[in-house]
Amino acid sequence: MVDIATRVYNHNWKIDPIIRSLIDTDFYKLLMCQSVLRNRPDTHVVFSLINRTKSVPLAELIDEGELREQLDHARTVSLSRGESTWLRGNTFYGKRQMFSPEFMEWFEKFRLPPYHLERRGDQYELTFEGPWPEVMLWEIPALAILMELRSRAVLKHMGKFELQILYARAMTRVWEKIQALRDLPGLKIADFGTRRRHGFLWQDWCVQAMIEGLGDAFIGTSNCRIAMRRDIEAIGTNAHELPMIYAALADTDEELAQAPYKVLADWHEEHEGNLRIILPDTFGTENFLRNAPDWLAGWTGIRIDSGDPVAGAEMAIQWWQERGEDPRQKLVIFSDGLDVDRIRELHARFHGRVKVSFGWGTLLTNDFRGLVPNDALAPFSLVCKAVSANGRPTVKLSDNPNKAMGPAEEIARYKRVFGVGEQTPRQVIV
Amino acid sequence: MVDIATRVYNHNWKIDPIIRSLIDTDFYKLLMCQSVLRNRPDTHVVFSLINRTKSVPLAELIDEGELREQLDHARTVSLSRGESTWLRGNTFYGKRQMFSPEFMEWFEKFRLPPYHLERRGDQYELTFEGPWPEVMLWEIPALAILMELRSRAVLKHMGKFELQILYARAMTRVWEKIQALRDLPGLKIADFGTRRRHGFLWQDWCVQAMIEGLGDAFIGTSNCRIAMRRDIEAIGTNAHELPMIYAALADTDEELAQAPYKVLADWHEEHEGNLRIILPDTFGTENFLRNAPDWLAGWTGIRIDSGDPVAGAEMAIQWWQERGEDPRQKLVIFSDGLDVDRIRELHARFHGRVKVSFGWGTLLTNDFRGLVPNDALAPFSLVCKAVSANGRPTVKLSDNPNKAMGPAEEIARYKRVFGVGEQTPRQVIV
Repeated sequence: MVDIATRVYNHNWKIDPIIRSLIDTDFYKLLMCQSVLRNRPDTHVVFSLINRTKSVPLAELIDEGELREQLDHARTVSLSRGESTWLRGNTFYGKRQMFSPEFMEWFEKFRLPPYHLERRGDQYELTFEGPWPEVMLWEIPALAILMELRSRAVLKHMGKFELQILYARAMTRVWEKIQALRDLPGLKIADFGTRRRHGFLWQDWCVQAMIEGLGDAFIGTSNCRIAMRRDIEAIGTNAHELPMIYAALADTDEELAQAPYKVLADWHEEHEGNLRIILPDTFGTENFLRNAPDWLAGWTGIRIDSGDPVAGAEMAIQWWQERGEDPRQKLVIFSDGLDVDRIRELHARFHGRVKVSFGWGTLLTNDFRGLVPNDALAPFSLVCKAVSANGRPTVKLSDNPNKAMGPAEEIARYKRVFGVGEQTPRQVIV
Repeated sequence: MVDIATRVYNHNWKIDPIIRSLIDTDFYKLLMCQSVLRNRPDTHVVFSLINRTKSVPLAELIDEGELREQLDHARTVSLSRGESTWLRGNTFYGKRQMFSPEFMEWFEKFRLPPYHLERRGDQYELTFEGPWPEVMLWEIPALAILMELRSRAVLKHMGKFELQILYARAMTRVWEKIQALRDLPGLKIADFGTRRRHGFLWQDWCVQAMIEGLGDAFIGTSNCRIAMRRDIEAIGTNAHELPMIYAALADTDEELAQAPYKVLADWHEEHEGNLRIILPDTFGTENFLRNAPDWLAGWTGIRIDSGDPVAGAEMAIQWWQERGEDPRQKLVIFSDGLDVDRIRELHARFHGRVKVSFGWGTLLTNDFRGLVPNDALAPFSLVCKAVSANGRPTVKLSDNPNKAMGPAEEIARYKRVFGVGEQTPRQVIV
């Protein structure tokens, strides 16, 4: 029987909205937003979308009108009653009331602020400007919209049968990856794939596959909407935008040198346990650890997000040992360019020496490589970053010079202030 | 939106019927049935189901009550008005009115006759007894019911997600097989997979995959219901049951030796062109061709259904040459145990030397090998054969002694009468 009501309802959609919820975002954005709202609410920032894969001509692929419709629609979305209840009532990392009543009241009234969109050649320039707590919440929806519109641009030329085969192959691939992880003893792995997902429904499917295939080894997803929908843990701590903006706001070189530690001092006051995870690579891991205050060695763990992950983790282990900490009690979260082989390799090397955990991103939720002609669904490297704060440019060095951003003279200054020497370029996979 | 009407309707099904149409059968059964109805309507036959794969304990897997329900349901099915219209109005092999008004009137009143079911150890003994034209139409529905009940017995223990992965993998496999055939120049291939299919919907899907993936190289399906549903050609000619029963009815050794040719003489009067396909292996291909009347070399082609297919086709080519026929004008249909590698190998060897065509069966419509634990969905070798005619046992020798059937003393007699020597046993794949 045809459900006529559903058919008619579907035909009446003006658009098929990509963003249908304000919590279809990464958990750490909300944690950071709460922190920013408390500590730096008046900072004026500019965030900008950057397509690091120039060979993907976004403006050729995606119609500007459709993009505006999706961005406009995202601005109409507000926190639903059920989402608010979930955020207020849920236990995150074993803690109730992770989000304060003040933050929740603010978030319930929140709408995404205006955007600025211009076409530049075959790319879009998409920027967001305004108070930091508002603008920062655009990052994930903006990425999700661009990623999914690009997928749709390719999919709309495919027949119903081709689509069925495409998803059968993609499902088979994800399932076989998951099977290839099942035998790892004590594996802990989470979905970190929101920002560069093929699409919302696909990410949701991948999460279900992880639940089915890995059981307790699957510890949750960074996506709050999916965590709520699938009744699993929301996962995440903090990101580069905090040290980048704290650093941009520094008035002197001395303040700049201290900025990354100031971020973590603020975080230290607000959070404990598994939320105390160091992200050391914003301006280079080596100098960050060398110059770190002693109290930081007492934190729960570290997240390795750029550079050679083996070198990064070994550096952390040595640093803990030098500070009299037992690495076996420490958590190392790998989250850069992971896929099955890399996960197995890192697990083999570090399991037992530290507590290991994986944040699996793009190659979980967007591995359509080789599945359509011209590889038109291959993932690509799109980011949405703070580019200035209170009128001053931001800088990121990272442990991979290919991931560095900011004006050349500022990069040079940061390298001098943080004492960053020679770095090895690594291919940015996704 | 939930379509409540559909949900309620589904819940009200007493059973989920496997056989929903009398033309959910192989085209050649209907062609043969028409011929039998004209030439040998009063022959009293017994057909019996034989599971050649003893390691699959059908009676352990399939509930007897469910089996009876499905068989009983099949007996309630009659030709629908639309099906009758399709059979009467359609062009088969370029010919209108393939089915005579007399046959159609008989078929419109037809119901499947009674069955006899008994459990013997871990197998079922399922037999059908009565007039040949009625009993013969049980073959395909009986096989389809047993095959699909076995699939369901395995599938019912699987979760929704596992099922999704299972079919994603199976679809991916079929699609990749089809892709691997696309580059063969002048390929002609049909679906012959009804009798040992995983299930009706799955066969229907495989046919759609062939349509999508192969275009004109896909020449049709043996299944009338699916041919009608997908608006493609119904394919097939005749099968072993004709010579087996004609042979069993022979009163003397001389009549027995002539029986296989008598079948084809009757067929010759009724059909022309692409329906004049020799099936030579019932009592051994070599002697069949050696002793064949000259007019048979004028037929359109030959079907190779047992033994070494290369040897069988070479024998046919030599036979045509000896009788002054041009093999390049002849059709060779391969239909035994085909899969991609075999198809490619046979195509490479015979394309250009003869007109080649493939009837792809079990490994198209039931290749679930390795997809579930204990390989519980692997295809197995189930047949439904005439075992006696007018009280006399039937015999099949075939070109593979592992496919021979009949009482030992009768097999010995047939071997003597037909002059069959040493045969090479080959593994029966499916």
